[in-house]
Amino acid sequence: MSNRSPQLIDPKRIIKFNDNIDREFLKFGSSDVNTNREIFKELMRQRIIHTNERKMIIVDLMTENVQKRVDVLKEIQNRHDDLKIDFQNDLQLLKEKYNKMYQPLYKKRSEIVNGFVEVDGITKTESSADVGIPDFWLTALTSNEIISWEINDNDKEALKYLKDIKWQNLGDDKRGFKLEFYFDVNPFFSNSILTKTYYVSEDEDEDVLEKATGTVIDWYPGKNLLEIKEGSDYGKEEEEAEVDAEKEDIEFSHYHSFFKFFSPMDEEEEEEDEVEDEVEDEEDDDSAVSDLQNSIEHDFEIGYIIKENIIPQAVAWYTGEAIESSDVVEDYGADSGDVDDVPEAC
Amino acid sequence: MSNRSPQLIDPKRIIKFNDNIDREFLKFGSSDVNTNREIFKELMRQRIIHTNERKMIIVDLMTENVQKRVDVLKEIQNRHDDLKIDFQNDLQLLKEKYNKMYQPLYKKRSEIVNGFVEVDGITKTESSADVGIPDFWLTALTSNEIISWEINDNDKEALKYLKDIKWQNLGDDKRGFKLEFYFDVNPFFSNSILTKTYYVSEDEDEDVLEKATGTVIDWYPGKNLLEIKEGSDYGKEEEEAEVDAEKEDIEFSHYHSFFKFFSPMDEEEEEEDEVEDEVEDEEDDDSAVSDLQNSIEHDFEIGYIIKENIIPQAVAWYTGEAIESSDVVEDYGADSGDVDDVPEAC
Repeated sequence: MSNRSPQLIDPKRIIKFNDNIDREFLKFGSSDVNTNREIFKELMRQRIIHTNERKMIIVDLMTENVQKRVDVLKEIQNRHDDLKIDFQNDLQLLKEKYNKMYQPLYKKRSEIVNGFVEVDGITKTESSADVGIPDFWLTALTSNEIISWEINDNDKEALKYLKDIKWQNLGDDKRGFKLEFYFDVNPFFSNSILTKTYYVSEDEDEDVLEKATGTVIDWYPGKNLLEIKEGSDYGKEEEEAEVDAEKEDIEFSHYHSFFKFFSPMDEEEEEEDEVEDEVEDEEDDDSAVSDLQNSIEHDFEIGYIIKENIIPQAVAWYTGEAIESSDVVEDYGADSGDVDDVPEAC
Repeated sequence: MSNRSPQLIDPKRIIKFNDNIDREFLKFGSSDVNTNREIFKELMRQRIIHTNERKMIIVDLMTENVQKRVDVLKEIQNRHDDLKIDFQNDLQLLKEKYNKMYQPLYKKRSEIVNGFVEVDGITKTESSADVGIPDFWLTALTSNEIISWEINDNDKEALKYLKDIKWQNLGDDKRGFKLEFYFDVNPFFSNSILTKTYYVSEDEDEDVLEKATGTVIDWYPGKNLLEIKEGSDYGKEEEEAEVDAEKEDIEFSHYHSFFKFFSPMDEEEEEEDEVEDEVEDEEDDDSAVSDLQNSIEHDFEIGYIIKENIIPQAVAWYTGEAIESSDVVEDYGADSGDVDDVPEAC
C-alpha cells in the first residue's frame, strides 16, 4: 500500500511518545546494541501503559457532545477509507493495463535475444553460430552489483542457458508476484522454468511478506551447483576439494550460489531453527531472529530488483548503461542516510 | 517514481561488482566505520575503472550483427520507456482525481472540529464554550511518536490554536508538495497560515529532494518559541534562565521546537557550513555532511508523515486508534532489518 512511511526511522527518534522517557533515551548512543535493547524493552513497556492511559484520558476528557462530534468524524473517516480502497483498485487496474502493453515488447525482445527473429540489415557473412545475443541475461544480471554478488563462476556457466525472465501477478486478488526464469536445455538441470514466488499479505494497511517459495531444481548427477564449491573444478577428486575448502573461508564460499534463490528457507527449517533457538540464551535468540530477518530481507531484495530493474531495462543492464544510472553505491554510509531516496512525493 | 529499489541495502552487499574485491570487502565487519569508509573509497575507485573496462569489453565482444540486434533492443526499450511515462502521467491523474474526492470530507471534518457546523443529537445543556473538538490537531500530532518528538510543552500552547492542516501539489507539473497549517488568532505569532514546501526533482529516474522552504513566522515580542528554552516560564528573568540552561543538556533542549520545521536550513546557512567544513579535516567533513543529510532526511520525514498519515487519518490519531496500527516501533533494531516494510509488491 502506498501508505507506508519512508524508511528513515532512527531508533533514537521513534521513542518520543512519553515525555518522561525521552531524555533517558537520548543519553545512550547506538553503539551498545544489547544495552539499548534492554532499555528499549523497558521503554516499550512504559509506552504500552502510556498508550492505554492516553486513550483512557482522551475518552475521559471527551464530553458527551465532543464524543458525538468524534463519532461523526469517524463516519467521515470511513467514507475516506472506502475511497482509498477504490483508489487502490483503480491503481491495480492501471498497472495491469500497462503491464499488458509491455508484454509484446518483452516478447519481441526475447525473440531477438534468442535468435527466433532476425533484425533488418544483418550481414550473412558470419558463421552460422551467429544467432541472437549470447549471454544476454547473464550479462544483464551480473551488471547489477547486488545480483552479481549472488553469482559465482559456476553459476555463470548455467546462467548462459537463461533465455528469458518474466514476472506476473498471482491473480485472484492475491498480493505478491512470481518470477519465471526460462532455461534452454542445459547440462545442469532438467527444469525448463525455475520460478520464485513471493506471497504478500496486507496487515494493518501495510504490506507484509508472508513467504517465498521456489522451484525444486532437478539437478543432473554431480551437477548440483549448491553442492559444488565455488572455484572448484567439477572433475576434482572429492578429497582434494575438501582440503582446498579447509584452506579458505568455507562459511561464505561453500554453498554460495545464485541457485539458492530458488530454495528459500522452508517452514520446516524455520521451525528447526526456532527449536534450536529455544535452548540458546536470549541474546543469541535475538541475533538468530535478526539473521533470519536479514536473510529474508535480502532474498526479497534480489527478487524485487529483478522484477523492478532487470526485467524492464534488460538491454540497458546488458550494455552497462544502467550501471551508471543506478545509484545504489550512493546509499553507502553507516549514518549518511538516504536523502536521495525520497518516497513518491505526490 | 515507482522505480526505486527497496531501501534494504547493506554496504557489505553493494560492492560485489568486481569479483576480485569481494573477498577483501567481506573481511571487515561494520564496526569500524572509518576504516570501512577508506576501503570503500578504494573499492569505488576500482569499481569505476572496472565499469568502464566492462563496457569496453561488452562493446568489443559484440560482433557487428549483435550490435545491430542490440540497437533494435534499444528501440524497443525506448518504446517501453515512453509507455512508462504514460503510466506515470495516468497515475498522477488518478491521484489527483481521488485527492479531489477527499477534499469535501476534509472540509466537513474541519467544520466539525472548529465548531462551524454542529452534528445531530447535540444536547444544548452544556456551556456555550462547548464548540467543536478542543485540541484536535495538537492531540493528533502528539499521538504520533515521531512528530511528538518535535513538540515541546511551549509548542503545545501554540498548537492549541491549530485549526487545520492541508496539503497540495505544487502544480505546473512541479514535483513535491506543500503543507499548510491554519492557525486561529493566537498570542504567539500574527501569521494565519504557516506553510512548508518540499521541492522534488527527478534525477536518473529517481526522486531527489531539492530543497524545502517554510514561512517566516512573525512572532510577537518575547513569544518566539525558537528562542524560549523548553520548560522555562515566559516571565522568568533572562539571567535565571541562563543558569538553568547550564544545568541541563542545552544542546538538545534549548532551541528544540516544532516551529523550527518552518525555518529549514537555507542555502546561505549551508554555504557557511561548507566553508567551515573546508578548514576541518576530511573525517569531520564526512561527519558534517552526514549530520546535514540526517537533518534534511528527518525534516522530510516529518513532512511526509504529516501528509501521508496525519492528514488522511486525523481522527484515528486524535482518538489514539492510529497508534496501535502504526508499526513504527517494530522497525527498531540496529540490524533487525525492515522485513515487514515491503515495498509495493505489484
